[in-house]
Amino acid sequence: MIILTETDLRRSVSLDLDAVDCVEEAFLALATKAVAMPPILRLDIPEYRGEVDVKTAYIPGVEGFAIKVSPGFFDNPKLGLPSLNGLMMLFNSRTGLVEALLLDNGYLTRVRTAAAGAVAARHLSRPESRIAAVLGAGEQAGLQLQALMLVRPIAEARLWARDPAKAQTAAADFTARLGIPVSAAASGQAACTGADVIVTTTPAESPILMADWLEPGQHVTAMGSDAEHKNEIDPAAFAKISYVADNLAQTRRLGELAHAITAGTASAERWFPELGQVIAGKAGGRSGAADITLCDLTGTGVQDTAIATLAHRRAVTAGAGRVFETAGHRKGAA
Amino acid sequence: MIILTETDLRRSVSLDLDAVDCVEEAFLALATKAVAMPPILRLDIPEYRGEVDVKTAYIPGVEGFAIKVSPGFFDNPKLGLPSLNGLMMLFNSRTGLVEALLLDNGYLTRVRTAAAGAVAARHLSRPESRIAAVLGAGEQAGLQLQALMLVRPIAEARLWARDPAKAQTAAADFTARLGIPVSAAASGQAACTGADVIVTTTPAESPILMADWLEPGQHVTAMGSDAEHKNEIDPAAFAKISYVADNLAQTRRLGELAHAITAGTASAERWFPELGQVIAGKAGGRSGAADITLCDLTGTGVQDTAIATLAHRRAVTAGAGRVFETAGHRKGAA
Repeated sequence: MIILTETDLRRSVSLDLDAVDCVEEAFLALATKAVAMPPILRLDIPEYRGEVDVKTAYIPGVEGFAIKVSPGFFDNPKLGLPSLNGLMMLFNSRTGLVEALLLDNGYLTRVRTAAAGAVAARHLSRPESRIAAVLGAGEQAGLQLQALMLVRPIAEARLWARDPAKAQTAAADFTARLGIPVSAAASGQAACTGADVIVTTTPAESPILMADWLEPGQHVTAMGSDAEHKNEIDPAAFAKISYVADNLAQTRRLGELAHAITAGTASAERWFPELGQVIAGKAGGRSGAADITLCDLTGTGVQDTAIATLAHRRAVTAGAGRVFETAGHRKGAA
Repeated sequence: MIILTETDLRRSVSLDLDAVDCVEEAFLALATKAVAMPPILRLDIPEYRGEVDVKTAYIPGVEGFAIKVSPGFFDNPKLGLPSLNGLMMLFNSRTGLVEALLLDNGYLTRVRTAAAGAVAARHLSRPESRIAAVLGAGEQAGLQLQALMLVRPIAEARLWARDPAKAQTAAADFTARLGIPVSAAASGQAACTGADVIVTTTPAESPILMADWLEPGQHVTAMGSDAEHKNEIDPAAFAKISYVADNLAQTRRLGELAHAITAGTASAERWFPELGQVIAGKAGGRSGAADITLCDLTGTGVQDTAIATLAHRRAVTAGAGRVFETAGHRKGAA
């Protein structure tokens, strides 16, 4: 077994077109191969405002499968610790033996989540998209913008967050890091008006993007919701959008679609295309320049298996990590 | 994070009364505390006859929770590798940070599974139980017998397995290791006739213990079934037994109870006691000396959390394992 630390993994994988392509291939596999992707295992520890998600997927033809553990403990900042954490394990698909432990503290998740945003924009937004709106001022807000710039000629961005001071700080930070002007908008609507691509990146539990703000031709990537109680998009938006799920079974339960179903603006039985089907050309995405598209990203195990496989391959090639002996006794008294 | 190898863990934990008490406390917690134990995550890789189970549970008051990954790849012996494997991770219940990686290759699972058999026998078999019947000749057959001897005055055992040669070898091995006469029986029925405790330890997919073999006063521990297709106990036995589940929601899906429900000999709606409720005195177990009891063990995450916590505590006290730095960058560009 090889143990790779966050430092090793940051050296091996960054948020670039390779990462975007790797995640795109994962979505394509989900639509075209006999991928095994069981429902997320979720453990809740309400005493400490903790939740743990475990995700996995096996992609036929890929030599390994990842199991990812993502704890979120929201009282951690009071203890001086980050809320989000996590690690991945990579197992050999043929033998089930553990091959690598990826102690990434959630880094690979942040990369593959942002990369999925780029994949969605590459297949759903208008190619000439120039103006981005980002709702949210957290780390993923910056990564989503960075990822979007890999696939679209974004020249300007507006950022809105509930806390205006955080929005100002993030806007200045992103301007410096990404080399385009990023301004803090006075309202969510001000950010979205005239934007070509809107990315929602918050843990909101009630809508922050309203249906009547949406304009013809816009593309929305909603990446905040990954649990039943999270909701960024006004359910009324479903009357005007072309909806694409990362995984339909999952967005019906955990995504923006779940809230639209509850609100009665979408039917629980209705079929919607998945991102992988759009990539494969099996299902329509954007029908024309005036279409409003929305991609609902709840996070899938195939993305984890894909990014972990890429990170492992690169780290091994670079001679990174530490080898750890796992074999032991096999039989006899305990 | 501390990394503990199988060797470290074998030095820290063995199949003794401490392990049995540790697992008993876990079942007690399941019946008396607000334990969080989500359904098992299961990934199937049919190309390689592979299956992976992920189990977890949080026990209030316990400082850590385990997440266990158990791969079973049944073509591995052709490659000179064991079919069963696995590892556990122990996370801090308050922060979600990983505290230990237990590279046990399934060792702790084997111990906690055998210990659960002892817990079942301690609470359900007649105290004077002298004769054991073991169906199956694998490693768990020996461990179950060893565990049973910790809690009952077992003086003799009979062993039956489909392959008579394997049964002979196992009987000789167990006789030498456990210090009681263990004989290979000519048939399952011959093994069970006159036995006080019967333990079924096979991956059978059709019954190996028939209803009409059962005699008043016997206790049966069925530990083989942990998946929908596995079935060791004749569904007709449900007409004569007092049934106890390790976890009722789970045995309805994965245990012997599932097959009885399918066969119509047990009702899907009927309540049955759980082992933890019997331990707590909240539900009856054995009603008298002539009662036939059966405990259906499918394996639960609380057992994993309990044994991982014990192993970690002991290993830390002993100064075992290797410390590995997990902290990394937290913010910024990817």
